[in-house]
Amino acid sequence: MPLDRLRDYRPDRTEPGDFDSFWDATLTQARDAATEPAFVRLDSDLVTVDVFDVTFSGYAGQPVKGWLLIPRHTDGPLPCVIDHIGYNGGRSLPHDWLAWSAAGYANLVMDVRGQGSKSGLVGATADPDPVGSPQVGGFLTRGINDPATYYYRRLYTDAVRAVDVMRAHPRVDPHRVFVAGGSQGGGVALAVAGLQPGLAGVMINVPFLCHIRRATEITDASPYSEITSYLQTHRTDVEQVFHTLSYFDGVNLAARANSPALFSVGLMDATCPPSTVFAAYNHYGAQDKEMVVWAYSGHEGGQAHQRAEMYRFARHH
Amino acid sequence: MPLDRLRDYRPDRTEPGDFDSFWDATLTQARDAATEPAFVRLDSDLVTVDVFDVTFSGYAGQPVKGWLLIPRHTDGPLPCVIDHIGYNGGRSLPHDWLAWSAAGYANLVMDVRGQGSKSGLVGATADPDPVGSPQVGGFLTRGINDPATYYYRRLYTDAVRAVDVMRAHPRVDPHRVFVAGGSQGGGVALAVAGLQPGLAGVMINVPFLCHIRRATEITDASPYSEITSYLQTHRTDVEQVFHTLSYFDGVNLAARANSPALFSVGLMDATCPPSTVFAAYNHYGAQDKEMVVWAYSGHEGGQAHQRAEMYRFARHH
Amino acid sequence: MPLDRLRDYRPDRTEPGDFDSFWDATLTQARDAATEPAFVRLDSDLVTVDVFDVTFSGYAGQPVKGWLLIPRHTDGPLPCVIDHIGYNGGRSLPHDWLAWSAAGYANLVMDVRGQGSKSGLVGATADPDPVGSPQVGGFLTRGINDPATYYYRRLYTDAVRAVDVMRAHPRVDPHRVFVAGGSQGGGVALAVAGLQPGLAGVMINVPFLCHIRRATEITDASPYSEITSYLQTHRTDVEQVFHTLSYFDGVNLAARANSPALFSVGLMDATCPPSTVFAAYNHYGAQDKEMVVWAYSGHEGGQAHQRAEMYRFARHH
Amino acid sequence: MPLDRLRDYRPDRTEPGDFDSFWDATLTQARDAATEPAFVRLDSDLVTVDVFDVTFSGYAGQPVKGWLLIPRHTDGPLPCVIDHIGYNGGRSLPHDWLAWSAAGYANLVMDVRGQGSKSGLVGATADPDPVGSPQVGGFLTRGINDPATYYYRRLYTDAVRAVDVMRAHPRVDPHRVFVAGGSQGGGVALAVAGLQPGLAGVMINVPFLCHIRRATEITDASPYSEITSYLQTHRTDVEQVFHTLSYFDGVNLAARANSPALFSVGLMDATCPPSTVFAAYNHYGAQDKEMVVWAYSGHEGGQAHQRAEMYRFARHH
Amino acid sequence: MPLDRLRDYRPDRTEPGDFDSFWDATLTQARDAATEPAFVRLDSDLVTVDVFDVTFSGYAGQPVKGWLLIPRHTDGPLPCVIDHIGYNGGRSLPHDWLAWSAAGYANLVMDVRGQGSKSGLVGATADPDPVGSPQVGGFLTRGINDPATYYYRRLYTDAVRAVDVMRAHPRVDPHRVFVAGGSQGGGVALAVAGLQPGLAGVMINVPFLCHIRRATEITDASPYSEITSYLQTHRTDVEQVFHTLSYFDGVNLAARANSPALFSVGLMDATCPPSTVFAAYNHYGAQDKEMVVWAYSGHEGGQAHQRAEMYRFARHH
Amino acid sequence: MPLDRLRDYRPDRTEPGDFDSFWDATLTQARDAATEPAFVRLDSDLVTVDVFDVTFSGYAGQPVKGWLLIPRHTDGPLPCVIDHIGYNGGRSLPHDWLAWSAAGYANLVMDVRGQGSKSGLVGATADPDPVGSPQVGGFLTRGINDPATYYYRRLYTDAVRAVDVMRAHPRVDPHRVFVAGGSQGGGVALAVAGLQPGLAGVMINVPFLCHIRRATEITDASPYSEITSYLQTHRTDVEQVFHTLSYFDGVNLAARANSPALFSVGLMDATCPPSTVFAAYNHYGAQDKEMVVWAYSGHEGGQAHQRAEMYRFARHH
Repeated sequence: MPLDRLRDYRPDRTEPGDFDSFWDATLTQARDAATEPAFVRLDSDLVTVDVFDVTFSGYAGQPVKGWLLIPRHTDGPLPCVIDHIGYNGGRSLPHDWLAWSAAGYANLVMDVRGQGSKSGLVGATADPDPVGSPQVGGFLTRGINDPATYYYRRLYTDAVRAVDVMRAHPRVDPHRVFVAGGSQGGGVALAVAGLQPGLAGVMINVPFLCHIRRATEITDASPYSEITSYLQTHRTDVEQVFHTLSYFDGVNLAARANSPALFSVGLMDATCPPSTVFAAYNHYGAQDKEMVVWAYSGHEGGQAHQRAEMYRFARHH
Repeated sequence: MPLDRLRDYRPDRTEPGDFDSFWDATLTQARDAATEPAFVRLDSDLVTVDVFDVTFSGYAGQPVKGWLLIPRHTDGPLPCVIDHIGYNGGRSLPHDWLAWSAAGYANLVMDVRGQGSKSGLVGATADPDPVGSPQVGGFLTRGINDPATYYYRRLYTDAVRAVDVMRAHPRVDPHRVFVAGGSQGGGVALAVAGLQPGLAGVMINVPFLCHIRRATEITDASPYSEITSYLQTHRTDVEQVFHTLSYFDGVNLAARANSPALFSVGLMDATCPPSTVFAAYNHYGAQDKEMVVWAYSGHEGGQAHQRAEMYRFARHH
Repeated sequence: MPLDRLRDYRPDRTEPGDFDSFWDATLTQARDAATEPAFVRLDSDLVTVDVFDVTFSGYAGQPVKGWLLIPRHTDGPLPCVIDHIGYNGGRSLPHDWLAWSAAGYANLVMDVRGQGSKSGLVGATADPDPVGSPQVGGFLTRGINDPATYYYRRLYTDAVRAVDVMRAHPRVDPHRVFVAGGSQGGGVALAVAGLQPGLAGVMINVPFLCHIRRATEITDASPYSEITSYLQTHRTDVEQVFHTLSYFDGVNLAARANSPALFSVGLMDATCPPSTVFAAYNHYGAQDKEMVVWAYSGHEGGQAHQRAEMYRFARHH
Repeated sequence: MPLDRLRDYRPDRTEPGDFDSFWDATLTQARDAATEPAFVRLDSDLVTVDVFDVTFSGYAGQPVKGWLLIPRHTDGPLPCVIDHIGYNGGRSLPHDWLAWSAAGYANLVMDVRGQGSKSGLVGATADPDPVGSPQVGGFLTRGINDPATYYYRRLYTDAVRAVDVMRAHPRVDPHRVFVAGGSQGGGVALAVAGLQPGLAGVMINVPFLCHIRRATEITDASPYSEITSYLQTHRTDVEQVFHTLSYFDGVNLAARANSPALFSVGLMDATCPPSTVFAAYNHYGAQDKEMVVWAYSGHEGGQAHQRAEMYRFARHH
Repeated sequence: MPLDRLRDYRPDRTEPGDFDSFWDATLTQARDAATEPAFVRLDSDLVTVDVFDVTFSGYAGQPVKGWLLIPRHTDGPLPCVIDHIGYNGGRSLPHDWLAWSAAGYANLVMDVRGQGSKSGLVGATADPDPVGSPQVGGFLTRGINDPATYYYRRLYTDAVRAVDVMRAHPRVDPHRVFVAGGSQGGGVALAVAGLQPGLAGVMINVPFLCHIRRATEITDASPYSEITSYLQTHRTDVEQVFHTLSYFDGVNLAARANSPALFSVGLMDATCPPSTVFAAYNHYGAQDKEMVVWAYSGHEGGQAHQRAEMYRFARHH
Repeated sequence: MPLDRLRDYRPDRTEPGDFDSFWDATLTQARDAATEPAFVRLDSDLVTVDVFDVTFSGYAGQPVKGWLLIPRHTDGPLPCVIDHIGYNGGRSLPHDWLAWSAAGYANLVMDVRGQGSKSGLVGATADPDPVGSPQVGGFLTRGINDPATYYYRRLYTDAVRAVDVMRAHPRVDPHRVFVAGGSQGGGVALAVAGLQPGLAGVMINVPFLCHIRRATEITDASPYSEITSYLQTHRTDVEQVFHTLSYFDGVNLAARANSPALFSVGLMDATCPPSTVFAAYNHYGAQDKEMVVWAYSGHEGGQAHQRAEMYRFARHH
């Protein structure tokens, strides 16, 4: 699809009637189950930032890990960026995440439950719900036969809770909390934008989990291919699966978002096809939104140049 | 490794001191938790066999599904073959499994917990334990940081329990229960041979899960590559992971087996390399054992010709 | 092409003027040359079916092999299904083909002349005509420079003859003969439907050899690629080749068919693209026809689930 | 295998007892059936050479095509080079073969029966024997279940006959006939060296069809993989197949050769592995032999540089 | 794009205002710097042609190598074909280039500066300009940030100069100079057609470097992918790069051409997509032009058959 | 090669007699041509570090770019790490390089002349020498026919000069200058260790350019494959090429090094095979050396965990 048509690509959305009550109930349950977060100072080789090993209550009160990096030699509340990680990645070690604290932000890097065993970014958070229904390897079909058991219900809730937690942190300015991520992290950031009002800004790069049905029809690249594989075998469950996914699709979450947003897209992205990214962007609910187009990028997007765009965006919001 | 050297390849085994007590405790717990199996007759298009939808108590008493096929026009107790399925497969539909009943055997096809969402063989059994620690997609690293939580502890136990169940079935001759499988199914059959004495015979084709450490060093093919990926990210857990795996490695289970066995191997098998198959075979504890070598086969092994070998083996045991 | 457009996709056909006389002459010659079929009872391990090693007269009276399986404990004439095999496959061993006899049908599995040296399904029938003109490896371009020498003239004729043979078999109800197959076997079944009237039903899965010119333009997958390779080298023979193929193209044979039919298609099939399958289906001449669409399947189609559809179809026809 | 070991690699050969009588009978039959060759002058755009469309009697007297190029402005008998073509290639058009005539040689380019439908080099010779037993696509397993019906019996005989034909040509010096080829053409040239004494020289580049059993065990590259595929399906015919191949293996033919030879090998050749080439070279029966080693070449070998070596070799023999 | 639409595909061109003055200045500078060419007779094994090692003044007077082949036994001025070589190729050895001299033409094979280290065709000409700005490996992005430093400025100029040189050669008829090439060589031949009036004919096969921006958007094949890679990293230079390329794009050069032309295209060419070839053809400025369409060819085009077309074209022009 | 043998793998080295004088002359020339470096403060979004855009005199006095990052809120001379970048990478933007400054080190990131157009890391330094002899795309064969013109002569010299420059920087402790890099950067760091005595430490991860001849023989992975491609075409230049490379091979440079070193290797590294890394390590001249082995890593090595090892190493040296 050429760029001109992408800019206007705003496909119909399919949305279940209880979308909002589903999420209200989920988030309420998580908040009710929440206990105090722990921030344990870590001895590290780093001298420009203080590092904390974080544990906070996510979905259903389950413990979620993370790193909090706070630039030294600063006073008072800081703006804060919460980072979400790409598929199969975990929080790794703190020195992998220096970009936001170096720019003067408190930075929470949220671990991804169950993930972090591939790609070199080791994870530390379990996904302990007793689900276990048959699935394709990976996380995209874990519990997919029911919205209540779907993996991303838990991950999105963790991410919403991370905002609650950082807004309450003494070194953070609760009015200047940003959420950011690329690929799966972009999908999660978009979900937070739809479920958590009043963010200072959302930075969504090459997002995954948008316009999912189309994605499964036009790309055979991993990880969308996990859904394709599942439906290739669970031949009679196609509609049930897309019913589940409709609670988690970025286009439906985008329609509810009202925080300022910076998106980016790679026009040669075969993993998260541009049309699925523009579908979410064009449905995104806020006026204050911007799309950075990288014409010759694939799923890597704008890399350091997109980082510069994010610095600019955050500085002005 | 040329065939001559394979025939003598009997590498040292590494075995934890509590191997037997680990399995005794696991199996005792499963047997204590067991309830009566259900065999529900299924209306099907088949006229030469009766088909039953089976539910029995597996690991920790958890429900495991299966199909039981019994040839019609037979009387009295029949010999029985329990079939185990390859990686990512489930029990599918009953008409996928006609070979043993057509040859006059009662045939239980055991479903594979959590699997059956890829490869076209749909599964129906959950793997409900609340584990969820970080893992590579798939089943090979699920719960791998501890033998107690490792996925194959549960699957092997299901398979041992299937023998208990079929021995007690009124149409089955308890002295003529066989266990069979290929690839993962071969690994499971081998595990049963090591944990359940007194089988009439075990048929182990191109088995997976044998001499695992060597496999991860010499092949980059899926699914052994799941372990490689895990260790590539969980860089500091290499010894812990192989400690866990030592409770499940076919070479250690083979050393405990004493039932007659028919193995097969494909010399061009890149998924389950021949040296890992011979390692298990050469450690296998029974005198009455036989290896069928398919010189130009890969992981598909001898297919219909190996089926003929199995008919012959079962007829004589 | 989206499903909506596929349902209406009925491209123009190109048909030589002597299509019918070509086939009449071919079939007449074959029938004239036919001798009595041989059905030699086979000692096998199977107890629910009787197995016969079949030799019958195919194209030009040449001998064609097959297996006949007849369920035991049945009386009188049975409905019969004739199975056709996919590309490169042969009749293998009888226990590979238990599905129809287990459902109460006499079942002829017709061997594929010259094929059966790849894919694990070993063949036993020669393709003895002295042709030998230059060809790409495989069967798709064997004798392709002339309809009279084209390989599929011989194979289709064998398949038409198989119906004659089974209709005359004492255990078969001549009014209830079905023809079935997938991929090449689906193409062959479709050809029989066009050349042999009065079948009880035809079951055509993911058929090959339909709308061939389009197939060579939109897929580079094997085996259609054999034609592409041929034309890449025989650069000046393009029209002659498609003239030959017009006698064998499923769209032209479909237009002549009047037996009830069950088709299936995988929307993600890259080997036999969906538009070529719908082209044949939409030209298929009978009113009583049905298309099963597997949205997330490739060339494997519906597998066990399609088998269930076929059981249902055959039960009602 | 490093170069040092290759230089000494002379594996045991396996040779059937009737090797020589098999070939004597075959060649005698061909010579007995031979008729006069036809050389039809072709109108072409070429001005430095005269081109003739050749038809001569090959195996069993069957017609084989070729091109003969004779440099203009020459008198009297010329030395002659007979070229053999690589797998899947045919004689194409005459202007594809200018190298030998430009150097002053009469040059016969022998077409390859049945081949020439792939690779862009179109063929014009049929392989008309009524064989047709099941085979993998391609020529390597055509008739492989019996030496009498094997494809290369016919092709090698054509090539031996080509020498007879050229020795009798009025413009050719019968004492200065060379045979040359690369890959399959190298294998054919080597066969001629073993079956036709008294050649002025043989030029064998990266030869195919040498030490075949080893090749099938160490490479999965096409075309040796055709044999592997065949044996993967015809599982019980392994020894029969290698019995057939022993009549055609370059190592056995090399042992009979006594004409001067120039070999070449690419040490990175994955199609015709270096050890199989050295096996033939080290068994080659003449004293006057030379091996050109291209250390960083694959199956393309030395290309124009090897052509220069061949010019040098032919000039001195 | 189907052939019908290709025949009419004539996209808008983008052309810098100083296109002609840029090239005038470049060519003037080269001609001013030119010195006498050297033609050194080579001792070779060839007897039908005389071979000369050529050195002439190309871009900025820099030395460019080549081979000149002149058929022996000819008198007076000959028509001449200048050959241009595909990407990564060099002039190799003279016996690689016999086709034109064998047909009675003087034939200059122009070496490609800096290239000739891959593909087996060894080169002998340096590209000595002190550029060295960051680039992707290869030649397609060498100096691409400025038209003045772009690699193809130098190569195209060499090729224009080759015409000057051959027109002045005593054995050449200056009114019958042709330029020919395939792929990169086709792009170079097209450039010469646009920059050097009065050619007897231009033969342009599967040309590279036409409608470049579209090519980078629709193919990910090498070598166009070098530009894509460059822009993926030099993210902010997209417009500057296409500004540079507009001086070298075949569609702009075609619009200036007025010599008779023979084009060819492979409809399955993934390296130089057919739409980019037709874009140039449809903009080509001469009335006397012809397109040979090879429907089932990829980038290899018509090979020997296209050579026959070229013989025909040259004979008639 | 198993780990046990790798630990002892110390192959013979081949070294030209004028190795040291070649480098002495080269470095002397560079130092003689050097002018004052420029450090231009950059306005950036970073608040924990000061960033400087660096230009210094490298090979032959040619300008080389880089970034200098100095942690704020520090006094006096700091230890300094000079980072070298992997193949095809450039200095990108400063916020890509925060790890060393965050740990309290002055950090120079040296740009790579001519590189930085692929891989997303954009470069800013030209490689302006007028070389241009034929080469494979990339940098590994640029100027390879002569040590004097070889690309790595210039790059290594730049890197040696970077140490001179940083030792002279007012904020750097000249006794605590480290050099570090991975892959190509590891090869460059090793070269500096051999050419620049008295470093505080050298950190060499998965180094490229070690034991190069062996690498070209055992891997076909890029970028070593550039040399293979070159020699495949420049067939007669094999010894000349390896003569050139002997001046740049890590094993020869290692033998001259005497600074403390931390190496790392991935045992599954197919790009820089472990045996080539151990060859350099085992020849490395200092007593104080350490090898970190990542058993299940490929060319990515230990990633964040290796960073932690480097922090530890630098803290103690």
